[in-house]
Amino acid sequence: MKPLADCRVVIVGLGLMGGSLAGALRGRCRTVVGLARREETIAQARRLELIDEGTTDEEVALDGADIVVFATPVRTIVAQLRELADRLPSGSLVMDLGSTKSEILRAMDGLPSGIEPLGTHPMCGKETSGVAEAEVDLYRGCSFILCPLDRTSDAALTLGRALVEAVGATPLVLDGARQDRLVATLSHLPYLLACALVQTADATTSDDPAAWTIVAGGYRDTSRVAGSDVRMMLDILMTNRDAVLRSADVFRDRFDRLVGMIEAEAEDALAEILTYSREERRRMYR
Amino acid sequence: MKPLADCRVVIVGLGLMGGSLAGALRGRCRTVVGLARREETIAQARRLELIDEGTTDEEVALDGADIVVFATPVRTIVAQLRELADRLPSGSLVMDLGSTKSEILRAMDGLPSGIEPLGTHPMCGKETSGVAEAEVDLYRGCSFILCPLDRTSDAALTLGRALVEAVGATPLVLDGARQDRLVATLSHLPYLLACALVQTADATTSDDPAAWTIVAGGYRDTSRVAGSDVRMMLDILMTNRDAVLRSADVFRDRFDRLVGMIEAEAEDALAEILTYSREERRRMYR
Repeated sequence: MKPLADCRVVIVGLGLMGGSLAGALRGRCRTVVGLARREETIAQARRLELIDEGTTDEEVALDGADIVVFATPVRTIVAQLRELADRLPSGSLVMDLGSTKSEILRAMDGLPSGIEPLGTHPMCGKETSGVAEAEVDLYRGCSFILCPLDRTSDAALTLGRALVEAVGATPLVLDGARQDRLVATLSHLPYLLACALVQTADATTSDDPAAWTIVAGGYRDTSRVAGSDVRMMLDILMTNRDAVLRSADVFRDRFDRLVGMIEAEAEDALAEILTYSREERRRMYR
Repeated sequence: MKPLADCRVVIVGLGLMGGSLAGALRGRCRTVVGLARREETIAQARRLELIDEGTTDEEVALDGADIVVFATPVRTIVAQLRELADRLPSGSLVMDLGSTKSEILRAMDGLPSGIEPLGTHPMCGKETSGVAEAEVDLYRGCSFILCPLDRTSDAALTLGRALVEAVGATPLVLDGARQDRLVATLSHLPYLLACALVQTADATTSDDPAAWTIVAGGYRDTSRVAGSDVRMMLDILMTNRDAVLRSADVFRDRFDRLVGMIEAEAEDALAEILTYSREERRRMYR
């Protein structure tokens, strides 16, 4: 496979993640091509200097592609992998930025032989969406999970690593099912908590205008990810349903236990579990 | 009452909140006196230039005080208000920084006549504790709730406002029960969610070393307040028990509803509630 610097890289979908990746890759490969559904998105990506070329035409974009990165919602990626399978140039590296990997890896496994698939998932983002929010530094310093398939060649994995490192991220090779289980707790569950917290505030305090004046740091931080793109999150929750439900079950059990201790005024037990939580949180970020 | 610039202000308890308030008030009143249990804390507050005077002796500290601010955990404040009632100079303004107000206001109401009590609660903080973490800008830009009692004079409320404004915060007068109900959802519930989330991560992912490499922004933000001081939080939860339990009930209902929709693959309903949550979150911070 060619070195990254000589590659024509096509980014399919110019939202926050795709637009940021395009901008971060510009100048680090031969050409960055943006493929989007709407002309307006292409024009905006050009204005923001995120792409070298842009088009709404799949054939034009994919012609001569060395690397194709799907940066659309998970189930759109699955559909596009099927629709575009015959247009992907033989020998090209096909990657994606989807947050759940099991269904995407299954679809990638169905690609024609000659294509080199590599599932990937960058552990970064913002609670905003759209190309206007793109930041060329979005990937800098983040972990970028790589899930190679059995069919993925060493050369393809090496090129995938090179792309990840080119945008300032750290590659981490993980099995797809294992990554899905981890992000269920570390990313998808926090999203559900944020949404349920916002609804709780809406039900219990939003009739009081003082609520908006006093909203404190705890609420702001815990509710932040509720602002994430709904279409993206819906695909994530539906394609990682089993792992998310398992994490939600464990969470409900731990939450009920805490609440039960408050109800029973079981202060010693409560102090112990709160101390344990505090120490665990600190250990994670030490 | 004297103008703030002429006041001797005693801060009882030099932790994160008391130490920061002391430092922010220095130079804006006649003298800032720190009262702490341990000499070591006083020495550290002096080194950090947070106080003009420091002592472990209540009598020395309170002699000639114009303003006394209790900056200890909620139930310690309640106990100290009783213990020190007879040492508080007649005519002095007595404030506190406790996060829940009902029990403190009740204790304040029992102070000798001649004392001017004013419950207060600054809506700021950090997930760390101790005088070493004090920041003179901690209060800058935050809302600072004032809960006057029936017996609080206009002059005392005016002096309380002046102190709040002197540290860069915005005063907001609220009824104590109303403030307790609001912070149950906006501050105490997020803390419980953070603790239960940390325990969930511990139970589901901490056996996997990759977990600590990939922990993403959502998890970091949602779990942040789990690092709060346990003694402080325990007092808060126990003195705001009814309101916290009510908020927790509403949360559990909303969370179960979300999880039920994922389980049932009720995508339309899920999309609707996630969109609603997103818009509510945005409305709050617009």
